[in-house]
Amino acid sequence: MKQLRIPGPTPCPDEVLKAMAMQMINHRGPEFVATMNRATENLKKVFQTQNDVFILTGSGTGGLEAAAVNTMSPGDKILSVQNGVFGERFATIASAFGADVTPLKFEWGQAPDPAAIEKALAADASIKTVLVTHNETSTGVTCDLKTISKVVKNAGKLLVVDAISSLSSINLPVDEWQCDVVISGSQKGWMVPPGLVFVSVSQEAWKAYENARMPRVYWDFSRAKKSLEKGQTPWTPAVSQIFALDAALTMILDEGIENVFARHIRIGEKTRNGLKALGLKLFADEKHASNTVTSVQSSNGLDTKKVTTIMRDEYGIVLGGGQQKLDGQIFRIGHMGLVSENNIDDVLTTLKAVLPKAGFSGK
Amino acid sequence: MKQLRIPGPTPCPDEVLKAMAMQMINHRGPEFVATMNRATENLKKVFQTQNDVFILTGSGTGGLEAAAVNTMSPGDKILSVQNGVFGERFATIASAFGADVTPLKFEWGQAPDPAAIEKALAADASIKTVLVTHNETSTGVTCDLKTISKVVKNAGKLLVVDAISSLSSINLPVDEWQCDVVISGSQKGWMVPPGLVFVSVSQEAWKAYENARMPRVYWDFSRAKKSLEKGQTPWTPAVSQIFALDAALTMILDEGIENVFARHIRIGEKTRNGLKALGLKLFADEKHASNTVTSVQSSNGLDTKKVTTIMRDEYGIVLGGGQQKLDGQIFRIGHMGLVSENNIDDVLTTLKAVLPKAGFSGK
Repeated sequence: MKQLRIPGPTPCPDEVLKAMAMQMINHRGPEFVATMNRATENLKKVFQTQNDVFILTGSGTGGLEAAAVNTMSPGDKILSVQNGVFGERFATIASAFGADVTPLKFEWGQAPDPAAIEKALAADASIKTVLVTHNETSTGVTCDLKTISKVVKNAGKLLVVDAISSLSSINLPVDEWQCDVVISGSQKGWMVPPGLVFVSVSQEAWKAYENARMPRVYWDFSRAKKSLEKGQTPWTPAVSQIFALDAALTMILDEGIENVFARHIRIGEKTRNGLKALGLKLFADEKHASNTVTSVQSSNGLDTKKVTTIMRDEYGIVLGGGQQKLDGQIFRIGHMGLVSENNIDDVLTTLKAVLPKAGFSGK
Repeated sequence: MKQLRIPGPTPCPDEVLKAMAMQMINHRGPEFVATMNRATENLKKVFQTQNDVFILTGSGTGGLEAAAVNTMSPGDKILSVQNGVFGERFATIASAFGADVTPLKFEWGQAPDPAAIEKALAADASIKTVLVTHNETSTGVTCDLKTISKVVKNAGKLLVVDAISSLSSINLPVDEWQCDVVISGSQKGWMVPPGLVFVSVSQEAWKAYENARMPRVYWDFSRAKKSLEKGQTPWTPAVSQIFALDAALTMILDEGIENVFARHIRIGEKTRNGLKALGLKLFADEKHASNTVTSVQSSNGLDTKKVTTIMRDEYGIVLGGGQQKLDGQIFRIGHMGLVSENNIDDVLTTLKAVLPKAGFSGK
């Protein structure tokens, strides 16, 4: 049995896999409605929001597309905060649908600077919306969303947050931080296989929706809302993942979200400390290190591709590589959702044995 | 255990449910690549095509949106053949993205007339693309796609086919019938839970893609093609459903697609004959009756909502109701994918007992 330690899909608990194997039911019948309503209410607890929360069938990127097309019109000025692959992807989507996107780029591995965002907003009053990646999965950086939110909301802009790899693992109180649209994906800390994306929509986002003229049918929030009033979805949903989500949410709420967040902090720190003790160099700025994914950069002759290959093929531990310009430059360890201190001990112990075989001449 | 006899989601075989319960793997690793490539190759056999076939994560409606945005530009003239809910939905999508859609409407329950399509194409040379629903799930009608295709391709138009509830159950030789884009959904005859949609793309469709200016990122065919060259998907896919599809395709190809089609013909006929023997009135024109779903209209005092409620709550057999303007007018029996003569005998025997309780005063 392999140990999956990539930043999503994450391993699923037995209860979740059992739910995935449930026989199909009528997605327009009472049994589905009960499950859908319960899952939606429990999702809101984890989102810490009174806003609408929709369960859409698709990948996380589909949720980013949904956030864009439901709140923007072609020509809208958008500030896109970017410090990795996913910030750039969000901008690509908005641009493809005709938004006028101004990128605000920060070095990969660093967190966005709220003061720079404030300055960018002050410099261009026509900006309507700010896109932020809460947890940049490609580099392992969590931004200071609380402060960024203050800056964005003080300036009266719409705040759209990619929280695909943070929400449910890292504290993100959607209402307290006034986040207008927040997107998360089932295959991350939610411990559910990929196929669902969750989106919260604030009153202010609904106002933006009224004027948003980007074309949309499949991802349309209003259709989702109308169907949800009957406990349904506009299109046939990934029923199995909704069963699985229902089971996973029960586990998350039984553990208590504060405890889940604390566990991720504990495990994030343990991972970083363990890697440093092996003499490895962390890629992300430690002040903003993510508690769901840690990236390690090459140093002392380390061949990061060799590390992941040997770890997988000889020891059955699957780590992530670097994406795009970080390909071959870093490797990544996912530690979100179903993860314990023991899992991290396994990774660290195994790494210790593997590093010399991957060219590492450090301690 | 309920018997699910709605036109999707359909019941899944044990092998498929077992695959759904498999633990997550790396969607960028060799194990996934092998599964993805095998599933894609086997899909092509069922599509009977050498064209590209993509596995996208989403509902069937997402596949319709994908077909539109990858082949059309705003302002393009589109002929939309409509004889039910799904033909209309296809037109709604194309219109929302700016196409200039001419509807060609046929009575619900009837099949589209190829001669009328020929006439409509002759009347407006500026039409670029024709949208056709192979099997209208809302009414239980299968169109004469072979003849329609000849008409459309003789006129030199692009042919886009919604085959969501037909492909894998009803013969649709994509290459022989020159269908340019064909869409099908996992939760129908494929015996896989909802969450995947399959799309075939011909050379002519790729030519249309080159000029198509509707905005797209998530559904973009070119991104799908580029990723598939590495045995991957551009965005994290519904991995579990791909495992399940792999298992289901093995079963379909083991049975042999000709045998699968023959079984659906046999069971479709058995269903219709059995219903008529009960004195019930079929809704769809029998010459074009679908072999995946049969609709029954109210007659002799029959309360169709009462039928489905009693069948479900007292006998555990779940049937479908009518959609939109057919709500309360018809009920529907799904018989695609995992279905045997015994399943239909169960439905018919139970119906016989239930009909008098639902106001039916016929034979």
